[in-house]
Amino acid sequence: MPTASATDLSPERLDALDTFLLDLNAASAEVILPLFRTENGLEDKAVTGLFDPVTEADKGAEAAIRRLIAQKFPEHGVIGEEYGEDRPDAEFVWVLDPIDGTRAFIAGIPVWTTLIGLRFQGQPMLGSIGQPHVGEVFIGDARGSRLESKSGVKPLRVRSCASLAQAITTTTDPLLFQDASAEAWSRLRQSVRLARYSCDAYAYAMVAMGSLDLVVETGLKSWDIEAAVPVLAGAGGMITDWRGAPVGRHGGQVAIAGDRALLDQAIEILKPAAL
Amino acid sequence: MPTASATDLSPERLDALDTFLLDLNAASAEVILPLFRTENGLEDKAVTGLFDPVTEADKGAEAAIRRLIAQKFPEHGVIGEEYGEDRPDAEFVWVLDPIDGTRAFIAGIPVWTTLIGLRFQGQPMLGSIGQPHVGEVFIGDARGSRLESKSGVKPLRVRSCASLAQAITTTTDPLLFQDASAEAWSRLRQSVRLARYSCDAYAYAMVAMGSLDLVVETGLKSWDIEAAVPVLAGAGGMITDWRGAPVGRHGGQVAIAGDRALLDQAIEILKPAAL
Repeated sequence: MPTASATDLSPERLDALDTFLLDLNAASAEVILPLFRTENGLEDKAVTGLFDPVTEADKGAEAAIRRLIAQKFPEHGVIGEEYGEDRPDAEFVWVLDPIDGTRAFIAGIPVWTTLIGLRFQGQPMLGSIGQPHVGEVFIGDARGSRLESKSGVKPLRVRSCASLAQAITTTTDPLLFQDASAEAWSRLRQSVRLARYSCDAYAYAMVAMGSLDLVVETGLKSWDIEAAVPVLAGAGGMITDWRGAPVGRHGGQVAIAGDRALLDQAIEILKPAAL
Repeated sequence: MPTASATDLSPERLDALDTFLLDLNAASAEVILPLFRTENGLEDKAVTGLFDPVTEADKGAEAAIRRLIAQKFPEHGVIGEEYGEDRPDAEFVWVLDPIDGTRAFIAGIPVWTTLIGLRFQGQPMLGSIGQPHVGEVFIGDARGSRLESKSGVKPLRVRSCASLAQAITTTTDPLLFQDASAEAWSRLRQSVRLARYSCDAYAYAMVAMGSLDLVVETGLKSWDIEAAVPVLAGAGGMITDWRGAPVGRHGGQVAIAGDRALLDQAIEILKPAAL
């Protein structure tokens, strides 16, 4: 099934949900930012091992987001990495991962992101990828996507890039691929212009932005990807599995591209390793 | 020879140079930021191949920095990646790389940095690592280092981490290591708590910040590393080659750590691959 189209909801209602999504990003940032790069205050990790900044930040932010949703839309469902599922079959369901890229977070590198998606009647409909330390929220739905930052609002649009030989590609960690998928990644890497690592979901935003051409991942969970589906849809990008079938709610093996022709070439290489 | 100590210059003169270094960062940012993430405006790279945003930004920023130095300190030397050497044997020599991490830059990922170092009597004395899209300048000398950002000024201090098993480590690209050095990196990666990639010089700032424990690189040029030497010195960190000998002006194989004991363990593994 395709992503729910904007006509399923009135534009006014979608706009109100979009504004609320920015509020959720702000509430999450307020919890997370004071905990970012705080581990350097801990002289002895053996003694202070009970305090884990990333877990504190992740849990605190998810609780803050859930609180706001419960106040404003008590009938909505919520699915989050830290606190499980509430009403997962509701008409509207929020899917949360306040800190995607925990390894970037603990290393102090501002490419971790806050992922918040909204399902309507079972399909991803609205989503945001936020990087509060940089001050960026990439947000959108099928009508269109944009970057909100301190420098204003900028529309998001993928760029054309019809061949692997011209493509800039990322994956989180090449060592996550094993056996057939390691072989597929190695073939892909040798075919592209440039490969980067360790970007996590920030890379999805860069495809929507038109800065990156292709992202290949494996082992994703629903909350790793669902927020990105509408942001990419609104920017003209696409998400499929390694066979080229659309990815909506589920994660697993994922390929993200801004150009259909490029995606087709990547799928040719990835398909033999599809699970 | 160790890094020149702060006593070689009056504190007033050092302070004035430090302020000027922030001015250089601002001038460089003014040229670079309008060119960051502009490639997405280019529909057809075959036609627009003559415009290369990262080269434009790198050259423009280096020219702007050189102009300011020539105005304020015409007797100082300058060494830059784009425009070569002027008076490289002067008492004061500025060493520039306006965009370190060009691959991050072209992918739109804000971990590229502006590196500006100042040599006094042949030794790195003052330096900065700037990330203008995030709005950060990590700056310092042997007296101390700090982060200047929109949220204010924060002192930089490495953290203790006495064992590889606890260390968070980065390298730019594991595929840059070949033969013996690939073997050494592989052993190191298997010994540490976490390995991240693609951070370039931003990782040096994170060691100074106390967020990262160890960085291992190979094939560095002088302008890739020289700005980081005083920032690390002022934060209590250290830079050596793969034999454990101090690195000042030269690049090549480099190991950076915040904790001496950790560095010693890393050197044990790296030494067999030292050139």
